[in-house]
Amino acid sequence: MEPERLLLALDFGGTKLTAGAVSTSELAASGERRWWAHRRVPSPPGSNAQSDLEIMMGLARDLLATAEAPLAAVGVSFGGPVDAARGLVLLSHHVPGWEEMPLREWLEERLGVPAAVDNDANAGALGEYRFGAGQGYDSLMYITVSTGVGGGWILNGQPWRGADGMAGEIGHTVVDPDGPVCLCGKRGCVERLASGPYVAQRAREWLKAQPDRGRILRALAGGDPLIRSGQALEAITAKLVAQAAAQGDDLAWEALEIAARALGVGIGNAANLVNPRCFVLGGGVTKAGERFWEVMGRTARETALPEVHFDVVPAALGDDAPLWGGVALAEAQVRCT
Amino acid sequence: MEPERLLLALDFGGTKLTAGAVSTSELAASGERRWWAHRRVPSPPGSNAQSDLEIMMGLARDLLATAEAPLAAVGVSFGGPVDAARGLVLLSHHVPGWEEMPLREWLEERLGVPAAVDNDANAGALGEYRFGAGQGYDSLMYITVSTGVGGGWILNGQPWRGADGMAGEIGHTVVDPDGPVCLCGKRGCVERLASGPYVAQRAREWLKAQPDRGRILRALAGGDPLIRSGQALEAITAKLVAQAAAQGDDLAWEALEIAARALGVGIGNAANLVNPRCFVLGGGVTKAGERFWEVMGRTARETALPEVHFDVVPAALGDDAPLWGGVALAEAQVRCT
Repeated sequence: MEPERLLLALDFGGTKLTAGAVSTSELAASGERRWWAHRRVPSPPGSNAQSDLEIMMGLARDLLATAEAPLAAVGVSFGGPVDAARGLVLLSHHVPGWEEMPLREWLEERLGVPAAVDNDANAGALGEYRFGAGQGYDSLMYITVSTGVGGGWILNGQPWRGADGMAGEIGHTVVDPDGPVCLCGKRGCVERLASGPYVAQRAREWLKAQPDRGRILRALAGGDPLIRSGQALEAITAKLVAQAAAQGDDLAWEALEIAARALGVGIGNAANLVNPRCFVLGGGVTKAGERFWEVMGRTARETALPEVHFDVVPAALGDDAPLWGGVALAEAQVRCT
Repeated sequence: MEPERLLLALDFGGTKLTAGAVSTSELAASGERRWWAHRRVPSPPGSNAQSDLEIMMGLARDLLATAEAPLAAVGVSFGGPVDAARGLVLLSHHVPGWEEMPLREWLEERLGVPAAVDNDANAGALGEYRFGAGQGYDSLMYITVSTGVGGGWILNGQPWRGADGMAGEIGHTVVDPDGPVCLCGKRGCVERLASGPYVAQRAREWLKAQPDRGRILRALAGGDPLIRSGQALEAITAKLVAQAAAQGDDLAWEALEIAARALGVGIGNAANLVNPRCFVLGGGVTKAGERFWEVMGRTARETALPEVHFDVVPAALGDDAPLWGGVALAEAQVRCT
């Protein structure tokens, strides 16, 4: 039996920093996902790369301080573009100072063990594949639908990152060239139709334009007078829209249905193009209920050719998927050495 | 130096049967694509699997009869669904009798050398990657746009066939959910908008509906009276539409432009999803001229995110791409043994 060692996983999210450690012997024995230790803190407002790195190293030291087993490797999920081959963070869209930061080297120097770095979508795919809903599938696409719509691939049991590390950008595939304009400048991207903020925006616009509809959603948001005065508009989130839809609100359901159909077409197109065995879906919008899943799944199957088979399953690891991907990245480092 | 041996490639197309042989020593020395011998015959009307196999074995025996070097391996491109892992033809949409035919085993028994079988899209991708326009790219998508729109992937220098061997079906990705109905039952598939027969059909419909337009196309098709009487409609092919467009016919160009845009969106979506280094485009419709390529390429780049980079290049091997893929399949068999 191998001696017990620790794998450290770090997740630099846009708004929070998380560190977790697992024991190799426990992983080997049970294959279960159980943290030996785990710490999460919000990324403070006005932070930069240096301050986030200091906070994260504090979390890591804290985790490792009481450990009796030595550290074997570290795996990192980063919420932004990464050159995984070179272990380089390219930039962060949320936090300044990350441009061309050699994070792998930085960590290897400080921790004295091998490190690997990937973006959060690829790390999430790897986490779900190794420890979550993707176990047993040798090809899958992981899709996360929340503020944005991102994704990552596992093909032949390995991450497929693409020539520029950009593979998996299902959020910016076009499914309706006559649709509304996306932040990226194109019309009818999956993200423009299916992400949480756009579901909420659609519901708000319809509430204003259709005063006789959306009774339940109006009530949940604090009452119609607040909506008419514009005060309740911020209360209308994709989550509230899903709640209203679950209670029978037609307007809320129609706002969600557009998201379900767009995602379904995006998934069906991805199935025809790449033919993976499974799609693993996470993120807040995918918690919108049974009807959402039914329409999304049916649209995906109708869009795919009859000979193209795949499962569509909910993610099992929630917000921790990228962190578990960090564990898998660390684990691969140990296997390599 | 290795002794000279021959690699045999067979291409079972929908309407023609082709066999070619190359010498391993010449491949190794020059890397050039030059047939040692090559034979092509039309698949006779009313043929079935058995008769096509007999004709093909005749071609192969003919090729090998005068050879002084021994046969090393055989690689096959088949125009229909194939289970490459098992070397099994699943069926042909053109020729009866191919259902569940163990073609690899059948050839290995008769020829006494290792064989490999793949479908024509994957074989075409492999051919262009190894011997054609895809040389030097370690990831690419090969797309052929003619009667249908098909495709195949090379990822990490290897064919990616997908969980059901169906990867690459870009022709049936949806790019316009409000578009016309495709043979597959969906609306706005790339194939429905971009394949040769549909480009021709669109031009015919517009000629009928818009009697004042399409002067050049009408003349090329044999004159307006023939079109009005319905006699010239068969003369209007995608090739003729492209000729008329090149001579300045607006109606013809608009019929082609829809194809160029649909292909561009399909390529851009595939780039965002998989991020390959290159798209290699073959098939009759892609010979439609500079303006077609310009619109297709621009649309693809506008559809892809700015961080996603790729080349779009014309195929180099034409109709022989699948046969050259057969050579590459045979070559891989020799390396394995």
